[in-house]
Parts: sequence; structure tokens; C-alpha cells
Amino acid sequence: MTPVVLDATHDPARKSWLLAANAPATDFPLQNLPLGVFRTGTTAPRVGVAIGDRVLDLRAAVEVGALAVRPLLAEACCAARLNELMRLGAGPRSELRRAVHSLLADGSRLASDLAAKERVLHAADEVELLLPAEIGDYTDFYASVDHATNVGSMFRPDQPLLPNYKWMPIGYHGRASSVVASGQCVRRPMGQSKPASAASPSFGPSRQLDYELEVGAWVAEGNPLGEPVPIADAERHLFGVSLLNDWSARDIQAWEYQPLGPFLAKNFLTTVSPWVVTMEALAPFRGPRPTRGADDPAPLAYLDDPGDQAAGAVALTLEVRLASAQMRERGIAPVRVSRSDFGRMYWTLAQLLAHHASNGCNLRPGDLLGSGTVSGKGKDERGCLLELTWRGKEPLSLPTGERRSFLEDGDEVVMTGWCERPGAARIGLGECRGTVAPAADR
Amino acid sequence: MTPVVLDATHDPARKSWLLAANAPATDFPLQNLPLGVFRTGTTAPRVGVAIGDRVLDLRAAVEVGALAVRPLLAEACCAARLNELMRLGAGPRSELRRAVHSLLADGSRLASDLAAKERVLHAADEVELLLPAEIGDYTDFYASVDHATNVGSMFRPDQPLLPNYKWMPIGYHGRASSVVASGQCVRRPMGQSKPASAASPSFGPSRQLDYELEVGAWVAEGNPLGEPVPIADAERHLFGVSLLNDWSARDIQAWEYQPLGPFLAKNFLTTVSPWVVTMEALAPFRGPRPTRGADDPAPLAYLDDPGDQAAGAVALTLEVRLASAQMRERGIAPVRVSRSDFGRMYWTLAQLLAHHASNGCNLRPGDLLGSGTVSGKGKDERGCLLELTWRGKEPLSLPTGERRSFLEDGDEVVMTGWCERPGAARIGLGECRGTVAPAADR
Repeated sequence: MTPVVLDATHDPARKSWLLAANAPATDFPLQNLPLGVFRTGTTAPRVGVAIGDRVLDLRAAVEVGALAVRPLLAEACCAARLNELMRLGAGPRSELRRAVHSLLADGSRLASDLAAKERVLHAADEVELLLPAEIGDYTDFYASVDHATNVGSMFRPDQPLLPNYKWMPIGYHGRASSVVASGQCVRRPMGQSKPASAASPSFGPSRQLDYELEVGAWVAEGNPLGEPVPIADAERHLFGVSLLNDWSARDIQAWEYQPLGPFLAKNFLTTVSPWVVTMEALAPFRGPRPTRGADDPAPLAYLDDPGDQAAGAVALTLEVRLASAQMRERGIAPVRVSRSDFGRMYWTLAQLLAHHASNGCNLRPGDLLGSGTVSGKGKDERGCLLELTWRGKEPLSLPTGERRSFLEDGDEVVMTGWCERPGAARIGLGECRGTVAPAADR
Repeated sequence: MTPVVLDATHDPARKSWLLAANAPATDFPLQNLPLGVFRTGTTAPRVGVAIGDRVLDLRAAVEVGALAVRPLLAEACCAARLNELMRLGAGPRSELRRAVHSLLADGSRLASDLAAKERVLHAADEVELLLPAEIGDYTDFYASVDHATNVGSMFRPDQPLLPNYKWMPIGYHGRASSVVASGQCVRRPMGQSKPASAASPSFGPSRQLDYELEVGAWVAEGNPLGEPVPIADAERHLFGVSLLNDWSARDIQAWEYQPLGPFLAKNFLTTVSPWVVTMEALAPFRGPRPTRGADDPAPLAYLDDPGDQAAGAVALTLEVRLASAQMRERGIAPVRVSRSDFGRMYWTLAQLLAHHASNGCNLRPGDLLGSGTVSGKGKDERGCLLELTWRGKEPLSLPTGERRSFLEDGDEVVMTGWCERPGAARIGLGECRGTVAPAADR
């Protein structure tokens, strides 16, 4: 594994000349510098960096001569998506991080250049944030053992975890075309379902619409078809992470998923948060992967590496909040329904990637790997309503007195995530939002 | 459903001035005109049409003024892949078909223009055939009830067909990055497997490498996210078909596939034949979809349409031939191991597409839909070795005396397909080939 390196860009004492970037609660301090793609008005999409309540326009920063980087890197900064930056790998990405850090840190010449500042910075609430990359393939994993155990015990009480679970990261291919950026509404899907009490299935709007709280990891450099990625190199192929909501229609899923897995229950929409927090920004929050149970098998050699064992986990706290239409009308803020810890996942991101490529499957820059629902052992750590309400048997109560087994039209789901520890600056992932729209009437 | 229309381009009496296009055994007579992407030497990829033993270069045909079509269509003909033509839909595609037909039919001025002929035609054996389109998403179905029943009875003797099978087309997402054009070798994948006799799984080269004979359908016009495609419109979203080999590692599949479906057992490679036979070329071979059994449910309304019932099937004969390295060394031609009829599939292509989009999932031009293994009731109609050798219990015998339960290194699999009936010109799909290379030694 690439060693976790801390440098001056992680120093929590360094401040930005942009005051909002120094606010204790900001997701985007000088130590974060996540990358994304934005648009203002009718301009073409551009690559940007989130800093406090602003967005730094990288193309403009290159054009005004504020961002001094190698031509290859400058060219990737001027693209309309992150794929070109992703392709360049960790070296150029670190170079860009250092250059942007120095541009935004106290003492930068940019701080006093009013004309240049005006040109390279946008108010975050005045830009439209887009999907950060063109996604070639989207793969979804199932890496939380607590999630797998909870879901398994509802459907197979005698054998919650299948025999393969602790030997390999279980995953399946998702749909790339329907991955969207935070904010787009989720239309309740139509589909086939068959309640246990019904003699035959029927087609109609899903009655068990759910969210799934996940982390999405973006692929950096790819690997050629037929050439596996050794686990020791896997981190090098990771670019960074976003929040990911794997919207799921549980009634459609239960009826369709055997024997080939989830399909229409999942592919109607997947939402990602638009800012990609790079592996460099996450460096201060890396730690040993969770110790396996005494009865658990050790990972097979192709999934094991001392570096991954020592620092494969990412201590990232994740939250889901929910607001009904009635709550919004009455001015009630979204209520927290769960909080969980990405650092407790059974499989690390490096293990997911190494497993994915172990048969020679080629990954490409911009590919998206979903972690699977991030749940923990506690009831308040369950990352989807299926678990939280135990398949609808224990509905949630909202401040309005409304109850929720699954999502209703008008419900808004807000996911957030952040890293914090003593001695490091807190960084956040921003938000992943979506509101449920009624099914198409046709 | 779009009515099946026959016009002058289907007239079996019309001949081409290219004599090889009139040979009775050719796959590519004047009535076929499949589209593909090719390269000569170091030139950029170009769109072409297969005709007899030649490839018509559409860009060159536009440039020399031989192909008189609307500017929008001419532009799509000059692209480096078929996606732009796919996006235009059936009207422009038919216009192109008529224009190319008239260019290549007896009486065309091109026949006597030596300089233009030289410029627009290439010998088929001197061009490299590429993947016809950039594939946004690849979905694989399971639409042969005989295949599903055979495979199911090996793994679940008490319940070969799951309860959902006759209610909906079962499908799952495959891997777009590893779809390649005919001719590329298939490297035996490494992976985890666990024989029933072993206490724990191990990682190594797959010992149960298989092919799957399928038809790949290419999406033409897409549908916006959130907007289903009514079954009556589904044909309009189909561009044409190729052969597809869904290479599968059965030992990896058996261990990994529960509960989320096939993943590394399939995504190491998928091969397609490079020529796309358009829906227009298939028109003379359409017929009623197979009558369902007396106990089978009628399709739900969103999967049913009188047009699809009357003409949803495509009478397409498919064959698999196999040659071992030893056979090639001894000059023995590949032997046929199965022949099956795509017209007997339980679900039609229109039903696959309408089901896929029924939840609002957006399909895009160039998306690829695999039919699933095309098997029939007879033993010689089984479209993969898993079925043919009944999971290795009844090995095949080759002319050399070699036996095959699954594929060995050096084995070559050749798939072919064609349509023929009295009163119509026979058309073929070309070939889908691949040879097994040893596992990567790492």
C-alpha cells in the first residue's frame, strides 16, 4: 500500500485568507480541497475546488496565471470533468493539492489581487454542481458485515451471512447511466412486486422505497484488461470519495433478485455528493482495519497487505437525516435517523478494488465503487430504512407525529459525512440530497 | 410495435455489382448491409458496411459524393463509432440503408467509377474490425427458458425455475469496460472458488471456463431518466443485433453469486461480433413470439403488445463450433457443438427493453443488451458447456480423442448466426471468435 503521507497541506494551524474556510464547522477548510465539476449560468462545465463558502475555478486560475502547475496537469484542470485528472494518478494530484493549498493559504499573492480573485472564485450557492466524472462503470459492494447480517437475518433467519461473505468482498454491477449529482429528485419507480399474501405479482409504484447510505470511491489510474491490481498497489488506483445514496425499491428487489441479483430495484437512480474528497485529504484519518473475529478467516493473500492492515480504514462519520413534506412546511429541520462509522467496514476500499481487478477486469479513471450500506451494530447505526424499521415492522416516528416504514412522496433524505480527530483539521464531504417525487402516472 | 416493413432493399432478386455479395453462402448480401467500425493501418476508426468480401467506407463514400444523404446523417456516417447513427433512430437508419443499397446494387454509377470504387471499398481481410460502439452500459438477460431450466435443475433440482421467471425478464448489469470485438483472446481468469469437497476456498486460475452463446442487441434512441418506454414503442429503441459470447467461470460463479448475482465470474471478458445487423435487415425474419404453455401466465400489460405478439420473435439460427489447439495443429476444422434458434426465446427483445426501462432507467444509444444463453430443448441445442456436459459429468469428445468438460487453454470458440427462409435472401451475422489464453502468472 502507498504509505499514508502527511505534509504541510495537512497542518491544522495553517489558515486561509478566505475567512469562511477557517470556520470550525466548515466541511471545506484549507486542509480538504475536494475536487468537483460546476457550472455557472450557461457556461460549459469546469473543474473546481471547494473552499469555505466558495468554489475555486481551476481553469480560470490557470488562465490568470495564479495556478502554476505542469502543462499536463494544467490541461487536466481545464477539462469539463475530473476523468483527465483521475487518469494522471497520485503524483500530479498531490502536486495540484500543494499548488491550490498555497494559492488559498494566508500569504498567497492572490489574497490581495482583487481582479484575479473576482475571476477565480465563485460563491458556492451561485454555481450548479454536476456529476464529477463521466462514469464508465459503477460497481456496488456490500462491505458492512453489520448491514449484511441485518438484511440476511430478515430474509434467511437460519443463515444471515452466506458462507462466502467473510472470504471475499461481495459486489455486483450497478447502472452508470442513472448516477446523478446531489439535488436531483428521485421519481418513485414503477415495477413488479408480489406481496407474500398475493397469488401473483402486479405492476405499480413501489411501496417500499428506501435509501442506502454508502461511500462512493472514484477510480484514479485504471488497469489494462487482463492485468490484476496487486493489493499492495490498490490505493494508488483510488482518487477519492463522495457520499452515495443507493436508492432501493425493496418490494421490487424481493421479487426480482433471484437468481441474478438486484436490477430494476436499484437502477432507477443513484445519487452522489458532488465534491470528491481526495485520498490525500483523507490521509490524517487513516487507521488499522477492524480486527476480525476469532472465528473469521484471515483474508486470502491477494486481499491481504501489511499496509492495508495498518492503515486501510478511513475514520469517516456518516449521518442520514430525513424531512417529510409536512416537516418542511412547518419549518422543522430534517431529523437525524442514523449515524455510522465507515472505519468499521469489514472490507477496505483497497480490498474492494484489488478483488474487482483480481480476474483481470479493467477499471478505468472515473469508475465508481459503492461501498455498500454503511451500518454498525447499534440500532441507530443502521444505514437504510429496511434495517432501521426492520422491514417496516418498527416504523420511525417523525416530529410531526408522522410515521415512516419506507419513504413517502415528498420525503427528503440528506446524507453528510466528516472526518475529525485531535490534531487534525476537521474535513467534510458536503451533502448528498434527494427528494422523493411521485411515480410517473402512465 | 413499429410494423415490420419490407421494401425494395429486401427484394431477394436484386443483385450487387460486387460478385462476392451474390454468393449463396455469403453472410453479407445486398439485403443485409450490417454496420460496423473498422480501421486500416494507422487511420482513425471509421464506420463501414459489410458487403460480400468487402467493407464499404462510409466516410469515403460521403467524401467522394457517392452517398447522397442528409447532412445530419452524413455527419453520423463520418463518426468514429456507431453511437451517433444509433442516436438518430429508425428513420435516418432506413434512409441510409436505401442509399447504401442503391450504391451497391446493379446499375449504380459507382460500379463503373474505378477511382471512386478504389477509394470507398476495402478488402474485408485487410481491415481491423473494432467494437462498433462506445458502450455506456451493458445488461445481460436470461431470456431462454430452456437455459434457465437446465441451469436451475443442476443447482436447485427441486425448483429449477424460480417463481419470478415467467412473470418478468430476469436480467442483471454486466461490465461495459471488458466488452471486446471478436478475435481478442480470453485470458483464463484467476479467482476464488470452493469445490464442495474443500473446507475453504482458494484463489487460482478458473478450472471451469465456459462460453455462453447469446445475441447482443444494441440500443438506438435512448429514453430520458424517469421516463419508461411503452412496450409498443420498444422496437423503435433497438438498432440491431450482433453475436455475443458471455465468457463465464463456473467455479468462481458458484462460490460468489449469492446473494447479489454474478460478478467476477463474468466481467473478465465479453466478446461481440463486430457487424451490427440492423432491425431493417431482420424484417423478413420476424414472426410471432412462441406460444406460452397452458399453465404459463400471460405477460403483464407493460410487457404485452399485439405487434410484439405477432412479430416480436426473430428467426435466427445460431451455432457454436469448437477447436482445440491440437485440432488446429492437425488441420482439423472446428466442430459444431450446438445449434439453437433465437426465435424460441421466452422473452422478445422488445420485452427486454420495455422491462429494463419500466422503472424509468435511462437507456442510451450504444447500450448493449445480452439476450442470455440461447438454448433449446434438445441436447444439441444447449448454448454453453455447463449445459452441454451437464456440469462436466458428460464431457464432449473432439475428433482428436480429446475430451472437454470445460474450456482448456488454446481452445477456440467460434459463434455464427444466420437468417434464412424461402422468398428471402439469406443474411448472416458474421463471426464471434475467441481463443483461451493461459492465466496470468502472478
